[in-house]
Amino acid sequence: VTGQVAPQPLSEEQEERIAGQARDLAVGAAQVIPEDGLVEKLRTAEREGRPLRVKLGIDPSGSDLTLGHAVVLRKLRQFQDLGHVAVLIVGDFTGQVGDPTGRTKTRSVLTREQTSRNAATYMEQALKILREDRLELRRNSEWLAGKTLADVLATSRALTVAQLLERDDFARRYRENLPITLMEFMYPMLQGMDSAAIDADFELGGTDQTFNNLVGRTLQKDAGADPQAVLTLPMLRGTDGAEKMGKSLGNFVALNDSPDDKYGKTMSIPDGLMPEWAELCCAWGAAELDEFRETMARKPMDAKRAIARRIVDLYDGPGEAKAAEERFTARFSRHELPEDLPEFTLPAGSADDPADIIAILAATGLAGSKGEARRLLASGGIRLDGDKLPADPAAFTIADLNGKVLQKGKRQAVRLVAKE
Amino acid sequence: VTGQVAPQPLSEEQEERIAGQARDLAVGAAQVIPEDGLVEKLRTAEREGRPLRVKLGIDPSGSDLTLGHAVVLRKLRQFQDLGHVAVLIVGDFTGQVGDPTGRTKTRSVLTREQTSRNAATYMEQALKILREDRLELRRNSEWLAGKTLADVLATSRALTVAQLLERDDFARRYRENLPITLMEFMYPMLQGMDSAAIDADFELGGTDQTFNNLVGRTLQKDAGADPQAVLTLPMLRGTDGAEKMGKSLGNFVALNDSPDDKYGKTMSIPDGLMPEWAELCCAWGAAELDEFRETMARKPMDAKRAIARRIVDLYDGPGEAKAAEERFTARFSRHELPEDLPEFTLPAGSADDPADIIAILAATGLAGSKGEARRLLASGGIRLDGDKLPADPAAFTIADLNGKVLQKGKRQAVRLVAKE
Repeated sequence: VTGQVAPQPLSEEQEERIAGQARDLAVGAAQVIPEDGLVEKLRTAEREGRPLRVKLGIDPSGSDLTLGHAVVLRKLRQFQDLGHVAVLIVGDFTGQVGDPTGRTKTRSVLTREQTSRNAATYMEQALKILREDRLELRRNSEWLAGKTLADVLATSRALTVAQLLERDDFARRYRENLPITLMEFMYPMLQGMDSAAIDADFELGGTDQTFNNLVGRTLQKDAGADPQAVLTLPMLRGTDGAEKMGKSLGNFVALNDSPDDKYGKTMSIPDGLMPEWAELCCAWGAAELDEFRETMARKPMDAKRAIARRIVDLYDGPGEAKAAEERFTARFSRHELPEDLPEFTLPAGSADDPADIIAILAATGLAGSKGEARRLLASGGIRLDGDKLPADPAAFTIADLNGKVLQKGKRQAVRLVAKE
Repeated sequence: VTGQVAPQPLSEEQEERIAGQARDLAVGAAQVIPEDGLVEKLRTAEREGRPLRVKLGIDPSGSDLTLGHAVVLRKLRQFQDLGHVAVLIVGDFTGQVGDPTGRTKTRSVLTREQTSRNAATYMEQALKILREDRLELRRNSEWLAGKTLADVLATSRALTVAQLLERDDFARRYRENLPITLMEFMYPMLQGMDSAAIDADFELGGTDQTFNNLVGRTLQKDAGADPQAVLTLPMLRGTDGAEKMGKSLGNFVALNDSPDDKYGKTMSIPDGLMPEWAELCCAWGAAELDEFRETMARKPMDAKRAIARRIVDLYDGPGEAKAAEERFTARFSRHELPEDLPEFTLPAGSADDPADIIAILAATGLAGSKGEARRLLASGGIRLDGDKLPADPAAFTIADLNGKVLQKGKRQAVRLVAKE
């Protein structure tokens, strides 16, 4: 055993710089574990003259990225801008094995291809936020595919059943007598193995990932490595101001949404959500946030416009932001609908086929769900070509709807088009 | 998908023979799962003109086999005698990985050698009961060492956390907040994988193994194979008549015990234990059991002698049984101690070193534990060279004890000898 060399002390300037960086990185974070993790890891990087390796596991299911995903990506970008390396992990191994329906070889191969496509789609969107240098894209099949049962058993010694059952969703499902397969139960361990495999110094994630991220710490420690620190970010609430932003809830803004959609959806958020969005979606520094807060106190609608402009700005550029704002003003503030409404293709069928207006409202995204569509109709919030629809509208055919404008409140509308 | 061929009906003679065999095999069993498992599996064997594969997992920790182990081995022998194949599984893979202290390479290699030695020791003793033909000895490393993480995940999909937590010891430990490692939690699955790997038709085990054995059924079913039936045997209570027979409790009779020890220990069991031992340890048929019960009703001491004789008989032969009985009678019934007492080597030390009589009583096996040693002394049940020892005997030196006879009650004694 060799004696441990006492770390060389850093200069005052170095310590000051690190303290400043740690403060900036902590902005907007929900939690840093351990508490002094930022300063300690930054010191390590400084002493060892190397960048930190900052891990983020990405969802291989291949959906559109939303402002919710962007929260953690922006934090990752902040690390990159300080010289550190973002290590994105595609869970392709777990994605393939984990598919509960993927029991046959054919299906599994398909999933492998899908995973590749999905990872590409993900990266295409993520690069609206991340920089391409200081970026490592890894697939966890690289190390997990070679693991044996013996490796698994040796690793699993470091975790207990009681610990795993503390994970929120496991705890809930166990309490409610819903099945948790042993396979799912091993997933946190696999994620932890990822951290060990790539020598992560930091792992980022939403607060829903805290448990899994801490497993990484445990396994690194157990393997005699320096455990990663964990930085979690709050779950962004969606445009409804109630639930966390999610694709299934229809309360999202996607990075690939058009500038008009980004602007319009943002203008629809409740005022109470503004501070959260300003902090988590706008990549504003302290001074800009102060200015925003002042505006919000005096002129809340201007503050909301500032958020909407900033969001289009970040993803589509300043020109687009200005244009989107002008179109929005034309369309809604002057109670006019512009000509370039988004089109929605009606379900396939002949002209006389019945068309379910409830389903169409949900499918267009005007309503987040069929339930919400019914509520919107009941409250008189839906118009068809300018006429308010009753709570229980008469049956339409596809021909009835073709070419008409379906409008929700003052701000959102689509032009319905029958399939050719 | 091909249509399933209806099984050919068996002849009346075949059905009768099978029914008879099933009845015999069910004698002494605690449970057969499914209930008609014996008849069904015997029919399968008959139809397919092949022997059944009857699995028994054996303990690779390498202890002496006791009459407790013999209960399940005798049932296995019964299957062999009907033409079926006993498949003994040495858990060498799990033994090596599972050792909680075996974290270094060196230790792991050592354990591999130990496992081999222990398996040899086990077989040497087991062959006092099993026949050498119709016997397959397998190590689970044969199939488990090649398993990958992907295999493990695919298999683990068939099991749920709630099911596994129903296993008695897991349930208890979880309730009492005692740690269960994820590694241990996977063990039932590994045992189940063994059943699938060797195409087991039946698995035998003590009632403490029922849960693990049923996992084998689940995994075979999940893999599309015919699931094994399970036959469990009651846990034999030890010579104290209270706890299940175990090495740590000192209430055991080992297959390698001398004829005198076998005879003497058996004569020490409480009368109430006789029916259980007669059924589980004596390999008696229905007629012999009836005869035994008659004797027990009239002359219990004769019945106990019959059990003791039978046990020596089974493992050491009829000549030894008779001789052991004669020596026992000479020693105890006539209140004399014979010259050929077993010797016990006192702990190393110089002649003047103090000797702890409590520890010696426990180490010789005269007392099952230090606590029992104290109780025996307190009740006046211990003599040194014929003199009753007081509840709190004066301090002895090794010289004091050298050559003396330490005696428990009327039946058991050792000669103490100082180390050369």
